Amino acid sequence: MSFRIDLKVRDYECDLQGIVNNGVYFNYLEHARHEFLHANQIDFAKLAADKINLVVIRSEIDFKASLMPGDEFYILVTPKRTSKLKFAFEQQVYRTRDDKLVVAAVIIGTSVNERGRPFVPAEIDQVFPLQVE
Amino acid sequence: MSFRIDLKVRDYECDLQGIVNNGVYFNYLEHARHEFLHANQIDFAKLAADKINLVVIRSEIDFKASLMPGDEFYILVTPKRTSKLKFAFEQQVYRTRDDKLVVAAVIIGTSVNERGRPFVPAEIDQVFPLQVE
Amino acid sequence: MSFRIDLKVRDYECDLQGIVNNGVYFNYLEHARHEFLHANQIDFAKLAADKINLVVIRSEIDFKASLMPGDEFYILVTPKRTSKLKFAFEQQVYRTRDDKLVVAAVIIGTSVNERGRPFVPAEIDQVFPLQVE
Amino acid sequence: MSFRIDLKVRDYECDLQGIVNNGVYFNYLEHARHEFLHANQIDFAKLAADKINLVVIRSEIDFKASLMPGDEFYILVTPKRTSKLKFAFEQQVYRTRDDKLVVAAVIIGTSVNERGRPFVPAEIDQVFPLQVE
Repeated sequence: MSFRIDLKVRDYECDLQGIVNNGVYFNYLEHARHEFLHANQIDFAKLAADKINLVVIRSEIDFKASLMPGDEFYILVTPKRTSKLKFAFEQQVYRTRDDKLVVAAVIIGTSVNERGRPFVPAEIDQVFPLQVE
Repeated sequence: MSFRIDLKVRDYECDLQGIVNNGVYFNYLEHARHEFLHANQIDFAKLAADKINLVVIRSEIDFKASLMPGDEFYILVTPKRTSKLKFAFEQQVYRTRDDKLVVAAVIIGTSVNERGRPFVPAEIDQVFPLQVE
Repeated sequence: MSFRIDLKVRDYECDLQGIVNNGVYFNYLEHARHEFLHANQIDFAKLAADKINLVVIRSEIDFKASLMPGDEFYILVTPKRTSKLKFAFEQQVYRTRDDKLVVAAVIIGTSVNERGRPFVPAEIDQVFPLQVE
Repeated sequence: MSFRIDLKVRDYECDLQGIVNNGVYFNYLEHARHEFLHANQIDFAKLAADKINLVVIRSEIDFKASLMPGDEFYILVTPKRTSKLKFAFEQQVYRTRDDKLVVAAVIIGTSVNERGRPFVPAEIDQVFPLQVE
């Protein structure tokens, strides 16, 4: 099952084309991932304070439509373990009023300790179970 | 030959991990593309005012290393025509002091007119020549 | 009576000090003003499309405390007419869990037409009634 | 004598009015202050890592004109000690091509230690000498 958050476009997130700037979707997606992690007892900020850094190593984003000022939208997050050290988030942004797909993304992350070495905390392991595919 | 711009990290672009936030690279890359277009007599803002919108339809970004407060870096932009209606930007972000690769990206765009229909201005055609591959 | 919106800190809004970056409050305050205007049938984005630009001419912000990752907060907006051509927004940001005052601000704006001349639309006049003080 | 940095507007910093968003000036001003501090051997990020936080407690900003896409501009920074525990930055943003004043600001800051108590490092004292007025 997917995790979902509901948001609304803020005018300052729109650029001179009058639509949400592409870079802002990256922020939206990050916020949705952190809320998803939070709902699973993983606190990004607390981990960072403990020198465990969750880092994005690759992002693939397809931009299908544009959000406009005032639009309400929701973001779905589906976790997927891709290897022992990597975990993926499949994410979609939908416009609320007609469920139109706005953005589809796959964000791949890993986790490193203070010395930059791969280190996957137990709570991450639980949220992203290693799967036989 | 690649187009290059030189920039420097601003502290407010760094997040609570103390490094440049992933979303900010998207901004950096966009700025480099617009500067590249400008150097080729294509003005993104002017086109937008004329209701010709250059839009990103896909981005693939690999994050290889992190920029820190105060780091100087440069961005390379290489244009590549991928089809009649699509054009790509191959972009790399390098840390200046050691030429370390920080981010590698492929950004694919298209151009639409006021009614959202594909429309590639002549000046775009010139910068992204259709190639026999 | 004051207008109120409720928001929550997003991790990407925090800077390397681990707190919400000062500049982000400016965004929060703008968003609250636009929501306030919206609730009073004034659409900032639509006005901009019609070349009527609401512009901020002065901001005074006192920073009393810091919001942290995950904090919920609310913003109050109180309109105040300061002269024929100027209108003010008194705004406060409070942390929700203990109603602690985080930011107190006075933002003064005006409205200009396509040629940059002062022009106050009728709907603005209604929201900011001229007062005998 | 004033400290000066030269910058250029990036398209993504412009909003749906087609001009630099007001909140972005706050970022510009912060960046200029940090560069000024750096030029005086004060490293904001390093201090933050050492749990000495320079914090803004009040900002007054007058918006006189608007920067547009592609505009080059410069920012002046003049330090001023206002009391034992407070220091001010007088800052102006000018458009380069005609030296037009765009923004005039006074930003007042203080410095706190890990427990949130006022603590002014020696290097700050040197940059902002206590004056008999």
